Formats: sequence, structure tokens, C-alpha cells
Amino acid sequence: MNADAGGSSYIDLGFARVDIGRESRQGLPEVVYGPGKQPSDIAAIVQRLLAANSGPVLVTRVEPAAATDVLEAVPDGAYDRGGRLLTWRVSPGGDFTLAVVTAGTADRAVADEVVAVGRAIGLNVTSYHDVGVAGLHRLLAVAGELAAADAVVVIAGMEAALASAVGGLVGCPVIAVPTSTGYGAAFEGVTALLGMLSSCAAGITVVNIDSGFAAAMAAHRMLHTMRRPGP
Amino acid sequence: MNADAGGSSYIDLGFARVDIGRESRQGLPEVVYGPGKQPSDIAAIVQRLLAANSGPVLVTRVEPAAATDVLEAVPDGAYDRGGRLLTWRVSPGGDFTLAVVTAGTADRAVADEVVAVGRAIGLNVTSYHDVGVAGLHRLLAVAGELAAADAVVVIAGMEAALASAVGGLVGCPVIAVPTSTGYGAAFEGVTALLGMLSSCAAGITVVNIDSGFAAAMAAHRMLHTMRRPGP
Amino acid sequence: MNADAGGSSYIDLGFARVDIGRESRQGLPEVVYGPGKQPSDIAAIVQRLLAANSGPVLVTRVEPAAATDVLEAVPDGAYDRGGRLLTWRVSPGGDFTLAVVTAGTADRAVADEVVAVGRAIGLNVTSYHDVGVAGLHRLLAVAGELAAADAVVVIAGMEAALASAVGGLVGCPVIAVPTSTGYGAAFEGVTALLGMLSSCAAGITVVNIDSGFAAAMAAHRMLHTMRRPGP
Amino acid sequence: MNADAGGSSYIDLGFARVDIGRESRQGLPEVVYGPGKQPSDIAAIVQRLLAANSGPVLVTRVEPAAATDVLEAVPDGAYDRGGRLLTWRVSPGGDFTLAVVTAGTADRAVADEVVAVGRAIGLNVTSYHDVGVAGLHRLLAVAGELAAADAVVVIAGMEAALASAVGGLVGCPVIAVPTSTGYGAAFEGVTALLGMLSSCAAGITVVNIDSGFAAAMAAHRMLHTMRRPGP
Amino acid sequence: MNADAGGSSYIDLGFARVDIGRESRQGLPEVVYGPGKQPSDIAAIVQRLLAANSGPVLVTRVEPAAATDVLEAVPDGAYDRGGRLLTWRVSPGGDFTLAVVTAGTADRAVADEVVAVGRAIGLNVTSYHDVGVAGLHRLLAVAGELAAADAVVVIAGMEAALASAVGGLVGCPVIAVPTSTGYGAAFEGVTALLGMLSSCAAGITVVNIDSGFAAAMAAHRMLHTMRRPGP
Amino acid sequence: MNADAGGSSYIDLGFARVDIGRESRQGLPEVVYGPGKQPSDIAAIVQRLLAANSGPVLVTRVEPAAATDVLEAVPDGAYDRGGRLLTWRVSPGGDFTLAVVTAGTADRAVADEVVAVGRAIGLNVTSYHDVGVAGLHRLLAVAGELAAADAVVVIAGMEAALASAVGGLVGCPVIAVPTSTGYGAAFEGVTALLGMLSSCAAGITVVNIDSGFAAAMAAHRMLHTMRRPGP
Amino acid sequence: MNADAGGSSYIDLGFARVDIGRESRQGLPEVVYGPGKQPSDIAAIVQRLLAANSGPVLVTRVEPAAATDVLEAVPDGAYDRGGRLLTWRVSPGGDFTLAVVTAGTADRAVADEVVAVGRAIGLNVTSYHDVGVAGLHRLLAVAGELAAADAVVVIAGMEAALASAVGGLVGCPVIAVPTSTGYGAAFEGVTALLGMLSSCAAGITVVNIDSGFAAAMAAHRMLHTMRRPGP
Amino acid sequence: MNADAGGSSYIDLGFARVDIGRESRQGLPEVVYGPGKQPSDIAAIVQRLLAANSGPVLVTRVEPAAATDVLEAVPDGAYDRGGRLLTWRVSPGGDFTLAVVTAGTADRAVADEVVAVGRAIGLNVTSYHDVGVAGLHRLLAVAGELAAADAVVVIAGMEAALASAVGGLVGCPVIAVPTSTGYGAAFEGVTALLGMLSSCAAGITVVNIDSGFAAAMAAHRMLHTMRRPGP
Repeated sequence: MNADAGGSSYIDLGFARVDIGRESRQGLPEVVYGPGKQPSDIAAIVQRLLAANSGPVLVTRVEPAAATDVLEAVPDGAYDRGGRLLTWRVSPGGDFTLAVVTAGTADRAVADEVVAVGRAIGLNVTSYHDVGVAGLHRLLAVAGELAAADAVVVIAGMEAALASAVGGLVGCPVIAVPTSTGYGAAFEGVTALLGMLSSCAAGITVVNIDSGFAAAMAAHRMLHTMRRPGP
Repeated sequence: MNADAGGSSYIDLGFARVDIGRESRQGLPEVVYGPGKQPSDIAAIVQRLLAANSGPVLVTRVEPAAATDVLEAVPDGAYDRGGRLLTWRVSPGGDFTLAVVTAGTADRAVADEVVAVGRAIGLNVTSYHDVGVAGLHRLLAVAGELAAADAVVVIAGMEAALASAVGGLVGCPVIAVPTSTGYGAAFEGVTALLGMLSSCAAGITVVNIDSGFAAAMAAHRMLHTMRRPGP
Repeated sequence: MNADAGGSSYIDLGFARVDIGRESRQGLPEVVYGPGKQPSDIAAIVQRLLAANSGPVLVTRVEPAAATDVLEAVPDGAYDRGGRLLTWRVSPGGDFTLAVVTAGTADRAVADEVVAVGRAIGLNVTSYHDVGVAGLHRLLAVAGELAAADAVVVIAGMEAALASAVGGLVGCPVIAVPTSTGYGAAFEGVTALLGMLSSCAAGITVVNIDSGFAAAMAAHRMLHTMRRPGP
Repeated sequence: MNADAGGSSYIDLGFARVDIGRESRQGLPEVVYGPGKQPSDIAAIVQRLLAANSGPVLVTRVEPAAATDVLEAVPDGAYDRGGRLLTWRVSPGGDFTLAVVTAGTADRAVADEVVAVGRAIGLNVTSYHDVGVAGLHRLLAVAGELAAADAVVVIAGMEAALASAVGGLVGCPVIAVPTSTGYGAAFEGVTALLGMLSSCAAGITVVNIDSGFAAAMAAHRMLHTMRRPGP
Repeated sequence: MNADAGGSSYIDLGFARVDIGRESRQGLPEVVYGPGKQPSDIAAIVQRLLAANSGPVLVTRVEPAAATDVLEAVPDGAYDRGGRLLTWRVSPGGDFTLAVVTAGTADRAVADEVVAVGRAIGLNVTSYHDVGVAGLHRLLAVAGELAAADAVVVIAGMEAALASAVGGLVGCPVIAVPTSTGYGAAFEGVTALLGMLSSCAAGITVVNIDSGFAAAMAAHRMLHTMRRPGP
Repeated sequence: MNADAGGSSYIDLGFARVDIGRESRQGLPEVVYGPGKQPSDIAAIVQRLLAANSGPVLVTRVEPAAATDVLEAVPDGAYDRGGRLLTWRVSPGGDFTLAVVTAGTADRAVADEVVAVGRAIGLNVTSYHDVGVAGLHRLLAVAGELAAADAVVVIAGMEAALASAVGGLVGCPVIAVPTSTGYGAAFEGVTALLGMLSSCAAGITVVNIDSGFAAAMAAHRMLHTMRRPGP
Repeated sequence: MNADAGGSSYIDLGFARVDIGRESRQGLPEVVYGPGKQPSDIAAIVQRLLAANSGPVLVTRVEPAAATDVLEAVPDGAYDRGGRLLTWRVSPGGDFTLAVVTAGTADRAVADEVVAVGRAIGLNVTSYHDVGVAGLHRLLAVAGELAAADAVVVIAGMEAALASAVGGLVGCPVIAVPTSTGYGAAFEGVTALLGMLSSCAAGITVVNIDSGFAAAMAAHRMLHTMRRPGP
Repeated sequence: MNADAGGSSYIDLGFARVDIGRESRQGLPEVVYGPGKQPSDIAAIVQRLLAANSGPVLVTRVEPAAATDVLEAVPDGAYDRGGRLLTWRVSPGGDFTLAVVTAGTADRAVADEVVAVGRAIGLNVTSYHDVGVAGLHRLLAVAGELAAADAVVVIAGMEAALASAVGGLVGCPVIAVPTSTGYGAAFEGVTALLGMLSSCAAGITVVNIDSGFAAAMAAHRMLHTMRRPGP
């Protein structure tokens, strides 16, 4: 291990340099990106993170078979099949309320990742599915609940008009996640991405296509600031 | 002139082959696209169309100075500065009601072209400006009027979410016109175009970026069918 | 169910909010997009729509195996294999005549969707296959029939020149559907899409790549206006 | 004025529908986008907003000459030349600390907009210029100050690597603004935009190219949540 | 001068290496591309080419003022303002007949370059303007003349459907030139380019956007082969 | 069959309109595009073409299994596995010499299609493989043979520099075929396509990506002109 | 074999022209690109290269099964499974030290190719994995070792910020390899590629996406120059 | 000034953080990018760099008027108009020979920047203009000189085939600079960029479009390594 204490520590496993300092440096968990890693590699990394830190440890986008292998090697964890997420030592649910809204049923998988990651890192998450703007009354019916949340994650593919509509109804932070739902001119989520970035509603922010993980982490950063002692 | 009577007639001016058969062939006016043509060329074409047909003659996207020159050469016409349109022998307003809605004030120039062209070819046009989805109540306040129209033209730039919202509120035809309003990820209207094509609202149709002319002509085609004697 | 009567009603199934108000709000059927939904989910949605409305119910892009499962759960429906469409309570054929023309034999699947959806929602559809502009005489031979229709759907991939040619021959509405037919510079339908949007024929409208469904619904919107009592 | 009280109010000026309900509906100021509007139009809109609400009123991207005209018509406002911003009734500075970092001197204009807008709506903004990653020691020297802020806005063009570097150092929200700085493969900010969206640092959010305004409003949404009374 | 005789000769002027071997190597004239070169540079190059070869010498895309300067320095040449072409020692017109067809009047400038270059290098060129497919009868009226030519150059912007229509009517070579005519989805000629490359008519070839020069030279290559003594 | 004799004839098979007039109209064979057609459909089309014309009949891009089925139904044809081509009544080899050059071994499949189609329609084809510009001496060694051909087809992927090099060495027509060879920035042939269109060598023409068929047909059009009786 | 001695020699195998002159012409090994070639073709080419030259012979991107077949036909070679590389007569390791750094574990495959090719052609390669900028301390910990190398290869996907960070720390040549690691807005390596090209660090050079081979060969070219006798 | 000695020093001027540590940290000069900076800002930065370091100081892309102002404020510098470069304390020319080749005369401006920057930082630069591949003999005539250089910079627009041709002739490093020369499908240098990245010649490296500066600095990095004392 590198001697440098605190935020600058890491462990060199040869194939990976495990950043064991993120928790103390940033107050954020180090999250492992699953694709392309062998279960044994994942297990080795998770063991180091569990040993060196005290907070939650997450591995994203893990297929069921690999999850089983990792959990065998590193027990006391859990697997969320919908969110494709492995977790250990999840945070207790806190005060920060996160509302997740999807435009259509096909956006469900991305929402599941927001929910799974969000809950593991201590967010209080509620979901509202299938409230696309082609039936605005469905959105207006839940507008009050969205406005009362600490932040809203809007998940939409195709033209992603839902982000603008929500952005015009609530005053809290809106994190927009474009999805690859749609075909033809939807261009695998690019149209949704560009639409969200060009939104006429002020102050919406955007993350990568299909990245439920990024949305949950963005919300966690807000929670991070709120948790600090006041000035 | 080519001998072939009716819909297959044209006049060869050397620099242009004036299609004097469109009126009888399609029941549509032959509309002259102004950019790149000298006022004298425009005048020559317009004179031939006026002589060979009996309906309206239009020239689109004409700058004021050129318009003055053309009108001097071919009197009895009119120029609409907002819509950049020259017209002769405009149609009397008919029964077909066309509602034009814009998302923002910056979409006004395109709307002006729809209005000018639409009125010249016999449509009954009403405009509703600045009803973007960032303030949905503005749209809902006019939803009834839109639904009562024979067709709706939706004009929007940026993410163009208005098209989907309108498409979910009315049962009549929706013709969506993307505009180059916006900056950065709006990509000069491409984002609006792709968003309208990928709309979650069923049966919306789309025309080229900033083409108010195309939208008015698409509405005229609907009027063309309605005007026919029944079976 | 939400109490709000009429056009603002929906049923929350948890995974979906079924818009049972579209029929009364817009006079359009609520059409279910099949991909990504389990047969049991589709069945649940269809049952709610059949119960809450009185018009046709459609599910698009359903594979044969899933169709069998759904039809077992919700009898009295029918499946169109070519158009990949499930239908219940289809509309009786009406007066609105829709001509469907394809540029080549490879555009057939998209045409099948227009036909299946169109017939289910009450349009009177006739097809003309393989009339691409590389043999213009094939198009000219059917020009009269196209011009007599209430609207024409032009389906073409590659460079999609057929849309412009048809647009210059008929006065009725032309709905252009780009298809992903072709290779290389055809870019999965993007070239056809851009060509149709840039057409030199006035007043052509365009829908998403391969979206036979959108074209049929666009025609239905025209029928919707025509069916209204006059002023 | 539309009768509907509170969040659903607007004033129809013909060329614009002024959303006077945003303040009560969302707790956000209604901000006027300047480009394409005449000074007299801007003045008319601002007067309505000042009369109907009690919070700050802003007009973005106003050139100096237009600003002078508007201020003459609507006194008691101020113009920030660097941020191209007109303001009336600005908010008193509050507790929310926003750190703004730029990668290079060419990103200054965008930073100026964040600062001007941020201060007008009550944020406590500090800037750190020219800390690009080609000289990492410049970033590390200010890392502590950035981590102590309530949120950080990272402004960078070219490859925008600064966003990832900051995202790995601080735990608070990071709002990334791509700029059109650079040439060739920088593609007017597109490369920076895509790089920020693809960042290896978790939970970064992104706004439109060159949109300092969007970044400031996104921070204001966070402040909005923090200001609420606890549960 | 480099000693190597014949096709491998060139003259190094420091700022340019004049290829004086192309005429003997390829039987093609060396054509100078005007943009970015000073009149004095052009004159120096032309003088060397006139001295070292015996065929025509051309300079393309020359503005009128520069043309005057060059002609003063190198007399006995001529300037074609429409085609922006400078020529010396033009070829006598030969047997090879080249038909040039444009889709619209806005494509005229590109046609002028084909005509000017073609005539200078010995082609027998005839033009047919404004025969776009929105009025197919205009094309059919000249189909016989096109089919009788030795090659046809089709010049079209927007969706460029004319190339496919011509390609299906004639058996001789079709050289398609996309133009930047159009707006929005025409993307400065890219849509026309892709449409021509994806044409459903067999054996059409394509050159760069707006490159009348390339089309004329492609025709000259055909003439080159035809002029050879038989086997 | 449609009564109209000669070039305007076609046979409507329902799923296809067989253009039996191309041979008399253009002097070109009607070539059937195989993908997406059932063997029985192909057989029906081929039978009609054989009956109505006297020249060669070709079907492109046919997989071996389908070829076997078609040949069983329509005997006396042949299948070229490398070129994936079915042929009946091929033309006797004539005087027109076509040289085919490839940049690398991976471009072989496209070359095979040029060769197979070219020979079936009467061209005298010779191939030169693997003469890419990374070893210019390989190209220079065959330059004389290329220059002596009536036309040259250059087949190259990646950056496709070979087209420019050949274009600078020969005076005869150069037909460039970009291929999808390469990875990363080669973008499936797009880079090769754009490079060929932007070539610094004058008068090169380009066809669609991987379209050996188009190149062979383009050469046939040249042969068509040469075969005509002189003036 | 072509008679021309030395750098202009090649052997024509029909399907390939083996460039046996590269070693004497450029001092570089001729490297065979494996994809699309049969094992027997590869073996034939390798045998010619071994016979005609005296340096190393390499075949890249070979799958294990094909490697086995080739090694059976041409013994005394070796296969590196990670780098997918076949080698014969590898160079002895020399003085040139090449440092290879990856941003994440998913970039490993590309690094393996750099290492395998580099070692086969005589470079002294050391790897540093998983030093992405989201944990800058990991990079700073190895900065001294990187600065001491003769050249550094930086391998990164997503936003590829690592290239800029390394470019600002070391004075030696930096060869950047974008990888297709990432999803959504990473666009299969395009974002990384554009970011590296737009880097704010001066004098970084870039090779094709995922091309470890190109990076190793670029380093070899530097070694080539250094090995030369001084002036 | 920040206290941290050596490579981590910088001076905060408010609008810029001058990296005065680059010379000691990397052995590279800190080069100031001119665009967007006022002459007074440039002067202030240059003065700090001159005072804190001992090597050359450069400012790139400076227009003549600004250059005059800066030189007045900071005497003893020089301005290269062709290369748009300001320099102070230039390095004495050393042993490292850099050959610069351009494909056409329009690439001259980029070459001028390579030459001006290269000479200021101690490279021994020779230029070879207008050696594009459309006349290969021009390239072959200088091939020996290119091969003898320590590195070659290839500057080309359009299809940039020159880079591949040079890459196949020399063994030393090849740094390719795409230029925005060309029109239409050249896409402002993008086609050249992609072609160079996809080159069939092994080990070529690429820098940003039109960046003569980057090429010179890349060469300087090679010189940096060569200058080091051996192991």
C-alpha cells in the first residue's frame, strides 16, 4: 500500500489500483464498474475496499452469474437483479428524498439502477412510471409529489420532452437521464440527450445515456453538501 | 411553350423551366423559391405563371429590396415583410382553420411565413405565440382552441417538446416545424428535428427546419382533399 | 383509477399508467408499443383499454410467440403477422382512401404495418409495390390512382427519390416514410429521411424511419378532421 | 391576464405569454432570453414581471446598446457587461457558496455569466481562473477551496479534462459547462460536451455548451431545496 | 527543372512544384486550383505550364479581380465569369457530347463551371436547366436528348432525386454532382451527396459537392479512352 | 402486362413490378438486388426477365443456399460464390478492358463482385491485388498496365489513398469504391468514401461503400457509349 | 519476384503482394494484419517474409485457433494471447524505455497489444494500470517513472482526460491511444479520440481507436532515429 | 507567487495562472495561446515567463496589430508574420533535423507555423512544398531527404493521402497534420484527420486540424528524449 495517509491512498493489485482514499477524500463511496472484469478481480477489489473503508461498496452492471460468483467469494453482500447491482454495507435510508420519473415503460431498466444505487448510498427513493407528455394529465397528477422531493431524476428516451415539462413544474434540482429507448431518429439515446441539453426549462442538468448510476451519484453529491455542518 | 396540354405544360425561359401545369395537375399553386434569383428573373417567371394559370402566385424568402423591384415590374402584387413573401391573386379565405403555435418568441419568423403563405393560399390561420412547455399552463389554456382547428402547426426549436405535448392533446393533424432557435446542443435545429421525428405522440408529421412554407403547403394538401366532391 | 372524468383519466398499474382518456380526449385510439413489454403486461394494459373505451385497441411490433400468449389471455383479438400487429375491436372500413406506395420490394415490411394499422383504425387502404424512380413508367402508370386517393403514404429507403416524384404528381397529402433499406451511404435510413425532408416537392411531410405506424396514425388524424360536423 | 391564480398565471402580450407564475410555482425567477427580442419587447416583459412578482428579474445575453435602451425604459436595473446580463431587484447574497473554475483564460466569458447570474439570484460565488490540467499543480493548489464549496461549476473547452479531475477531488455537486473554446477536433464545444458526459468521475452533471446561465440556475435549484424547512 | 524526362518532370518554384509531366503522363491538362494563391503565383505557374506543354491550361475558382491581374501578366488567355475559370490555349470542340442537367435554377453556378471547363478541354457541352423531379414532365421532355449524349452530368441539391430519375432513363455514363442548394436538412449538400451515392439507379457515379470541375474532368477521362487507337 | 411497348413495359407480380423495358430503354440489363427476397420471388422475377428480354440477367448478393434454390427453379444459370452473384445468359467478353486494383487483401470480396458482374455483362476484367500506397513500388510496378486499360476500378478502405495515387498516374476513367475495411476512425467505410470524394486527383468518380456492383455497372455505361455507331 | 533489388522488392502471391523491401527501405518490420486472412494465407506470407528478411515478423489480431494453425505451418514462432500477436525472430530488448499507462482496467486489452508488439520489435516496455484522473494521486505517484521513460503511451477511453494530465507532467513524447471503453456519449472511442486531439497539453500525438499496434510502431520509429549514427 | 519551488510554481494574475514551472518540470517551454487575450494580458504573461525561466517564450496565433502592441510592451522579441508567432529568447538551432512536407500550396500557412515554432525551440527545419500524391514523382524525388531527417511532419488537407505515402517510405517518426484545405466532403479537415488516423502505413501519429504548433512541440518532445544523457 502507498504510505500517503488519507485521501491519497491506493492499493496496487497489478491489474487495478484500488482507490481506497475516495471515502475520506470526497465522502463518496468508491464504486466499481463491473463490465470487463472477472468475478475474481471484482472480489479482490471489493475485499480491499471493505477492509480499508467503512461505508458502502457497490459494483454496477453485473450479470446474475457473475454476481453469484462474487457473492460466494465475498459474503454478506446483496444483488439487485433489476438494477444489476452488487452491494455490501448499504447506508441506512436518510432524509434526502429522491423522486424518479420515467416517460415510458421501456425506461424501467434505467430507473431500476437509480433506485438500487440510490438506496444503497442512503437516498430515500420513490418511483413514478410511465408519465410521458403524450398524456400530460398523468404528469400533472403527480406534479405535487415531484415538487416536494429534494431532487427529481427524469428518465426518458425518444424526444425526452418529459425533462422540460418537469423542469417547468418543480423548483428543486432536476437530473435528466436520456435513455436509448426508441428507434430510427432516436439514434440510441442521442436525440434524448441533445433534447435534454437544449431544454427550454432553466437549470436542468444531464448525465450520460442510460446512466442511472450517474444520476444517483449526482443526487448523493447534493446530499453530501446538505449533511455538512452549517457555517 | 411545350405543346402537351394541361398538367404537362411548361415554358422554357432558358435559365428556368416554368411549370405552368401544376395548378391543373395537382390543384396546387406553383410557388417560386426566391433565394439566388435576380428580381428580373423572378418577374419573368411570375408573369408567365400569372398568364398561364388563374390561381395565386407566390414567391418565398424575398428580401425587401428585391421585393420592391419585382413589384415594380409585376404590379398588383403584395409583399409581407414578416413572412418575406410576395403574392399575387391570393385565394379568398375559406373554411379550413389552421392553428399555428410557437414555443417561444424566437420562433416568430417561421410562424410569420406559415401565416403569410397560408393566408395567400386560402387557409384560415390563427396564431398562438410563446406557449412552450416550461410553463405548461400556457399550453393548457389554449388546448381547446387547438383541438378545434382543422390542423395545427407546431413551431419549436431547442428540444421542441411542444410538438409532443400538443400531439397528446388534439386529434387533428399536427404538422411540426423544427426551428434553428437555440445554441450549442440545439445544433441549428437538428435537435428539434430529431425530437419531433422521435415524438412519443402518435401520428405527428414533420417538415424541414425553419420551413414555414412547407407546413402551410402541407395544410393546403389537406384542404385540397376536403374540397373534393364526396364519393 | 384517478377520479378526474373524461380525457384526464388513467389507470396506474405500477409498471404503466394506462391512458384511458385518449379516446375521449383526442378521438384517437391509445396504441400500445410492444417492444420491451412482457405478454402479461401487454394483456393487462389491453384489458383495461377494452374495458374503459369502446374503440379499437392496438399493440404494435409484437413477435408471433408473444402474440399467441397475449391472445390467449385476451381473446377476440387478431394478429397480423406481416404488420406485427395485435388488434381488438377494429373499426369498420370508412370512406377515407389511403394509397400506399413502396419504392422497392425491401420496403414491404413497413408497408405491411401501414396497411395493418390503417385497416384496424378505419382507413380504406390500397397498396402499390415496387414503383421506384429507376423505372419512372411504373410510377406514371399508377399516378392517376394515387392522385385520386385522400392521402398517399410513400415508403422508400436508399435515396428516397420516390417521395419527391409523387409529391409533384398529386395534390393530396403525402406522408413520407423513410426506410432502413440500403447499405453504406444509405446509413440505415438517415439518407432517406434527410432526402424526404429536403424534398423539392412542396408540402410533403415526414415521419420516423421505418414507422409505418406513424404514417397510419397521421392519416387517421386527417380522417378525424374530415369526420367532424361542418361549421 | 388569465384568471387562474398563483402558479398558472400568465399575461398574453401577443408576441409573448409572460409566465408570471414561475416564482410562486417553482420558487425560481422567470428569466428572459434576450437574443431576437427588441428592446421595447424586453422592456414590456420586464415591466410585467416586476409588477406581478417580488423577486429578481433577469434578461440574459443582452448586448450593451440594447441594454441601455431597456434600462432607459425600465429604470432601477443594472447591466453586467462581462456577463451580458440585465438585472432588477437582485437577491441578497446568501449562505450557498458556489465555486467557479475555468480551465483557461478563453473560458472567461462563460464564467462571467455564471457569476453575474449567480449573484443576481442570491448565490455566493467565487472564481478560480486558468487551472487546466496541463499544469495539475494549479488545480491541486485550490482543491481545498473547491471541496469546501456547496457546489462547483467547472468550465472548460477543448477536451474538458478539468471536469473529471475536479470530480475526483470534491464530494459536493459538480456542474460541468462545456465551452466552444478550441479549434479543429474541439468542434465548437461538442468534444468538451461529450467528454464531460463520459467522465470517469462519478456523479458529474452537464449543461449545454457555453451556458453559464444554466449552470447558475442549476445551483439555484440546489439552494431552493436547502432553503426549505426540514421535515 | 528535374532532369527526368516526360511524365516525371516538375518545376520547383519554391512555393509550388509545377507538375509539367501530367500532359504526357496522363493525357490530361494540369489544372491549377485558384483559391489561396496570389495572382503573381498563379501567373508564374501558368507561364511554366504554357512553356512546358502544348495543351490547354486552366485555373479554377478565380474571382474577377484576380483574373484581371493574371491575364495582364499572362496574355492571350480568357476568363469565364460564370464558371470563374481562366483558360489559355483551349482545345477545339470535339465529338464527345456532354449533356448537363440541373434540378433547379440555384444549381446554375455549378453547371457554369462544368460548361466552362468542359469546353476548354474539348467537350461538346449542352445544358438543360431546371428539370427537377417535382415536375417530371420537364425531364421526360428532354429524356431523348439526354439518352443520345455520350455522358450526362446531373447537378442537383436538396434531395437530388434527379440523379436517380436520369439514371433510370439513359444508358450512357451519369456523373452526379451534389450541390449545396437548400437549407436545414439539406446540410450544405451532404444530403444530396448521400442520396446520389445511395441511388436506386445502377451505375451512377458521384463527385464532390459543388465540384463542376470534377465532373468535367471525369468526362474528359472518358474522352481520353475513346480517343485512343483501337486494339 | 402493361400494354405500352418497349421501354415503358413492366410486369406486376404483386410483390414486385418487373421492369422488362430497361434493356430496350437503356441498353442495360435489369439487375435484381437479392437481399430480402425469397428464392421463389427471385425465381419468378428472373423467369419474367429471361422471357421478355434477350440479354444477361443478374441477381446480386445471393447467399449460397438461396442460390441453389433459385438455380433449381430456373436452370441454365451459374453462381459465383466469391461475387455472390447469380447469372443467366452472360454476355460474351468484349473489347472493353477494365482493370481492378485493391489496396489490401481485405478488399477482395468487393473486387470479386466487380469481376463477377463485369464479366457477366461483357467487360474484359483483370485484377491487381494488394497494391496499397504503404508500399508505392507495388503500385508503380503495375502503373503501365493500369494506364492501358479502358477504365480502372480502385477498391480501398481505411484512408483509401490508393484512389488518389492511381488518379494521378492514369488518364482513363477512375471509378473509386470505398470499402468498410478498417476499424475505429475508418468508420465502416465512411472515411474512405470521404477521402475518395475529396481526392486531389482530378476527375475521379465514386460509388457507394462496398458496391462492387455499382462500379461494374458504371463501367458498362462507358462501354454502352463506346459501342454506339459514330456520328 | 520483382527484379528491382532492395527497398522496391515484393512477391506477388496472387491474393497478396508481400512487401519484402520494407526492412531495407524503412528499417521497419513488415507487419501482417490478421483479420480476414486464412491461416494458410498468413503462413504463406510469413514464410516469404522470413526468407527474404532477417528481422522480426509479426501478425496482429490473430485469434487463438488461427494462431495454432499458423504456428503449425510456420514453426519457431510464438503467440501472445493477451496481445493477440504472432511473432517470429523477435528483436532483443534494447535501451529504449517505453512506459504504458492505462486509465482503467477495461483498457487492458489495448495495453496488452502495445506490450506484445513493443517487446517483439525491441522496445523495453513497462506498464502502469488503472491510473485514471478520477484519483489523481494514483497518477502523481508514478509521475516520476513516466517522466524518466523515453516515451509514454497513454491508453484511455471515455473522456480520456489522462492524456492531458500526463502530457502536462512529462517532457518526453506522449502517444495517445483512445479506446472504445465506455458507453453512451463515449461513442465507441470517438469521444476519447476527439478529446486527445483537442488536448490542452502541448505536443501530444494520437493514433487510431484501440490501436495498440500503431502506438508501438510509432515508438519504434523514434527508436529508429535514435539508433542512427550521429552526424 | 506560490511558494512551492520548481515544477509546481505558478503566478496568479487573476485572469490567468502562469505556469512558470513547466520549463523545470518538463523541459518544455510554456507556450501562450494568443486568441482571446488582450495585448496587455499577453505582455503581462510573457514578462512573468521571461523573468521566471531562462528558455524561449512563445505566443501563437497572434495577428500583426496585436503583435506590434505586445512587442512594444516587451521588447527584444520577434514576430513571424507567416507563422503568426511571437518569440523571445529563441533556442539556438541544434542537431535535430525536422523535414516538413506539404501536399499543396494551400497548406502553406500551417507549414509556416511548424517552421516558426520549430526554429524558436531549437529544431533544424527544412520544408518541401507541394508534393501531393496526384504527382507521385514529386514525392519520390525528395524521398531520400525525408528518410534522412530525424522526423517528418506531413501537412495535408482534402484526403491527406500524402501521410500514408510518406509513412511507407521513411523509417523515422511521421507526425501528420490534417488541414482544413478543400471543400464539400473535405469537411473542414475532418476527412483529412480521419484518413490520417486510418492510414495503412504503420506508426503514423496525428495531431489536431491545422495545428502546426502541436506538430512542432511533438518533435520537440523527441528532441527532449534524445538530449538526455544515456543510461
